[in-house]
Amino acid sequence: MAVQYELIKRCSKTGARAGRLHTPHGTFDTPIFMPVGTQATVKAMSPHELKEMGAGIILSNTYHLYLRPGHELVAEAGGLHKFMNWDGGILTDSGGFQVFSLGPLRKITEEGVTFRSHIDGSKQFLSPERATEVQMALGADIIMAFDECVPYPADHDYARKSTERTTRWAERCKGAHTRADQALFGIVQGGMYKDLRSMSVRDLVSLDFPGYAIGGLSVGEPKDLMYEMLEHTVPLLPVNKPRYLMGVGTPDCLVEGVLHGIDMFDCVFPTRVARNGTVMTHQGRLVVKNAEYTRDFRPIDSDCGCYTCRNFSRAYIRHLLKTEEIFGLRLTTIHNLYFLIHFMKKMRQAIIEDRFLEFRAEFWSQYQK
Amino acid sequence: MAVQYELIKRCSKTGARAGRLHTPHGTFDTPIFMPVGTQATVKAMSPHELKEMGAGIILSNTYHLYLRPGHELVAEAGGLHKFMNWDGGILTDSGGFQVFSLGPLRKITEEGVTFRSHIDGSKQFLSPERATEVQMALGADIIMAFDECVPYPADHDYARKSTERTTRWAERCKGAHTRADQALFGIVQGGMYKDLRSMSVRDLVSLDFPGYAIGGLSVGEPKDLMYEMLEHTVPLLPVNKPRYLMGVGTPDCLVEGVLHGIDMFDCVFPTRVARNGTVMTHQGRLVVKNAEYTRDFRPIDSDCGCYTCRNFSRAYIRHLLKTEEIFGLRLTTIHNLYFLIHFMKKMRQAIIEDRFLEFRAEFWSQYQK
Ligand SMILES: [Zn+2]
Ligand SMILES: [Zn+2]
Repeated sequence: MAVQYELIKRCSKTGARAGRLHTPHGTFDTPIFMPVGTQATVKAMSPHELKEMGAGIILSNTYHLYLRPGHELVAEAGGLHKFMNWDGGILTDSGGFQVFSLGPLRKITEEGVTFRSHIDGSKQFLSPERATEVQMALGADIIMAFDECVPYPADHDYARKSTERTTRWAERCKGAHTRADQALFGIVQGGMYKDLRSMSVRDLVSLDFPGYAIGGLSVGEPKDLMYEMLEHTVPLLPVNKPRYLMGVGTPDCLVEGVLHGIDMFDCVFPTRVARNGTVMTHQGRLVVKNAEYTRDFRPIDSDCGCYTCRNFSRAYIRHLLKTEEIFGLRLTTIHNLYFLIHFMKKMRQAIIEDRFLEFRAEFWSQYQK
Repeated sequence: MAVQYELIKRCSKTGARAGRLHTPHGTFDTPIFMPVGTQATVKAMSPHELKEMGAGIILSNTYHLYLRPGHELVAEAGGLHKFMNWDGGILTDSGGFQVFSLGPLRKITEEGVTFRSHIDGSKQFLSPERATEVQMALGADIIMAFDECVPYPADHDYARKSTERTTRWAERCKGAHTRADQALFGIVQGGMYKDLRSMSVRDLVSLDFPGYAIGGLSVGEPKDLMYEMLEHTVPLLPVNKPRYLMGVGTPDCLVEGVLHGIDMFDCVFPTRVARNGTVMTHQGRLVVKNAEYTRDFRPIDSDCGCYTCRNFSRAYIRHLLKTEEIFGLRLTTIHNLYFLIHFMKKMRQAIIEDRFLEFRAEFWSQYQK
């Protein structure tokens, strides 16, 4: 198998677990946060900066790469790793989430999804087979089954039919997938219905994927409802396979996700808010663009070991952001990614030392949403 | 003296010369190209990347820093070097060029220039004394006298009056300048008139500046006219002082500038065109954004040792530029600055080996304007 999960330590009081993910491009400690590199680049970052800050796996988007520069071109370049010069792990999503987000521009049938490109309006088609073919051409270490992300809210009937179709599509993806050096993960759906989550897990586990994502969460529902779904769903998943919670990347949700036994996370949040001048700290968000930091010559976080905090002041970063200098976005992006990557490392250490609940209590005592 | 020029080698056949510039922040080989960091950052670059590629002195703009974040704030931060975390050399211009470029927004008197900020329209005033005070607060190693850049074309009468005032202003700058750890350079003007250039040099040299810039060139005149002015003006300058040609940064003009005995250059050209998707090579410009590079998996220049050329293909860089990814601008900027910095090093080596004319002939045989 291309990708294997090794369980190192289970928390004695919660579902949290520390492990290792073995992939064709390295072994990575879990739980892990995966920076998002939508268009074959993590926005504003170089691959060397990512490596330097300890990033292990990054995520890239099939939908975007399919449209630009096209998966055939990436394959011709020798695959995504070579194209973007990243020798760490890569996970590609299936494109499903983006395609379904197109709203009136797309039409779903049992066969697949017809949609119009958001770039030039051209008519396009993605199906389980096609999404798998595209991802095989891109050549990530982990690829995802083509699914429909059940929107929130959705009635039980819609959620059931959609989830059943996602399972049929997962089976078709598996049939189309032929690369032995990639792992194809299934995606659990089911909306906010426990019975449908159970059904989805049962059906997907019978297909025996090397890893499972939990999709359809963090789509606008209250956080408590997300945690309730995780509490119900994660224990149903096989213990020897990695579990990936899609689209989650705020510190509070990462702590709760890990608590419930999630191993992998991705989110555009840290990089997106960075470009808006917001940085993450253990105390919550800090809008370094704000006037109060004009003459603040301290680093963003004096305890942080990132390149930004070791070298530059809030006042300088604010000046760069106010004058729309690219280097300002680089500095906030570096800090936010470093922060999350090291936040995950701290959680992992707490699990290994069996003090995860204490870590969580301390986190919540400091964190302001 | 804060800054001293050491002459190492003169070309036996031309005015070209190799030297060293000793400053409070290091000694730098000349001829040198100085990247422009208008707003206390060389656009898209980190100070560490600049250092890594061999940048010695960078230029920053008094006008821009005066308006944002303000020179008092920079002084409070410990000066420009500390504010932007750059421990190499810094040269600040006087703000004169930007202020005069404001056109109808500014009014010139003998006392100084009243102008409106291009940012918020607020009324501002810069004079020789004020420009010097601002530059002392910023704390660059080399600061420039406040001058008027004679526009092109200008009649002889206007050019004479303006140049005479620039000399009076240079004297006032000298009177206002009190920092022993900075060097104040005078700026030779005189438009396209040899008699006025001679007059300007004579008057400024009598004030005994530690270095001299040649201003008012590269302002729209034909290149041959610029070279003619250089041929006339540079030999009039003292041999033991550095000579700085302002606003020049294309390979052809750099070669001809060095030929005529210039030691220092700055220009926004390499960083500006980089952000437009144009890269510099020994053969001329290459528009890497063009469709012909879509599937070109070679580096920009296979002989180039820059980070970009060692790691990324034209096809990847084109993809990043087409999808408006910041990393694309970083990669083209890195290449262009590295190219120019190493182009200067090659010229210097040729001077030291007394084969500068051969270097120049080879350059022109390859270069397409
Ligand atoms: Zn930091
Ligand atoms: Zn290069």
